[in-house]
Amino acid sequence: MTTDTISLIKSSIKSIPDYPKPGILFRDVTSLMEDAQAYRATIQLLVERYKEMGFTKVVGTEARGFLFGAPLAIELGVGFVPVRKPGKLPRKTISESYELEYGMDTLEIHVDAIQENDQVLIIDDLLATGGTIEATTKLIRRLGGKAEHAGFVINLPELGGDKRLEALDLEVFSICDFEGH
Amino acid sequence: MTTDTISLIKSSIKSIPDYPKPGILFRDVTSLMEDAQAYRATIQLLVERYKEMGFTKVVGTEARGFLFGAPLAIELGVGFVPVRKPGKLPRKTISESYELEYGMDTLEIHVDAIQENDQVLIIDDLLATGGTIEATTKLIRRLGGKAEHAGFVINLPELGGDKRLEALDLEVFSICDFEGH
Repeated sequence: MTTDTISLIKSSIKSIPDYPKPGILFRDVTSLMEDAQAYRATIQLLVERYKEMGFTKVVGTEARGFLFGAPLAIELGVGFVPVRKPGKLPRKTISESYELEYGMDTLEIHVDAIQENDQVLIIDDLLATGGTIEATTKLIRRLGGKAEHAGFVINLPELGGDKRLEALDLEVFSICDFEGH
Repeated sequence: MTTDTISLIKSSIKSIPDYPKPGILFRDVTSLMEDAQAYRATIQLLVERYKEMGFTKVVGTEARGFLFGAPLAIELGVGFVPVRKPGKLPRKTISESYELEYGMDTLEIHVDAIQENDQVLIIDDLLATGGTIEATTKLIRRLGGKAEHAGFVINLPELGGDKRLEALDLEVFSICDFEGH
């Protein structure tokens, strides 16, 4: 990764104070995607990182994970599997619940979406506490897939998500880090 | 488009009876995306159809529109703009409401996502009654963008969405048609 490319990508991400609630500085990837050059560079960096590693599927979580995982799957020439909120997937699913700051949330995956020994790359826009990716990893492994890599556009290291995922034997990669949360 | 490619794509789409409610035969694109060959062929057909037409943005609607619109934007080398449900976009938005079978729904777009004279291609997975794409077209045009083309993986012609969108001066393209609704 060249420093110039990372600067291009990082500077295309807008920061929104007090969204979705007071005290949160939200890092917004929609401004990155609207910039053709930054969006393409982001996908290309992920391709460079993950090509020729033998992945057979990319998994992305609803909904912003789709925006990076789906193009990456096309570029890598593998299938894309969506992990979604309850009730959104029409066929037989399994689910995992995980803790939020207040309360719980649940994610689902189709049971036939991952085959035994699939080599699965997990992609999301932003790594914060890592709760959604921990649940996603469990879903993939329950179906017999190998989940050893998770890639993000943005990491917020102060929230400790990278440490949490590394403790699950996931190798974590991110294009750019931001301070704060 | 070769008949073989279209057959490959069409046969990868699973049909789920009585989802999301009794009497509906749901056409499921997740099985298409899980099939690397079918997913790539789908994006390539859209690229063939829409390259060199001067588009400056691709717009996709939450959440399945992201799964085809985002890879297409990357392949065409243009930016991607998400149209989302209320409260999901962090910056200043405008919104359009539209009728469902029972009740109303609303879509939003960032006001700075479309510039005057942007040539916008609208992409979604499936054309049914056309309500979401009519609302999306209005959002783009209110921001000064040109919206003259909408592309879909699946069309359900019996629901009349194509006629409704053509009445809005949109040129409608779909890769495969299915009977019923």
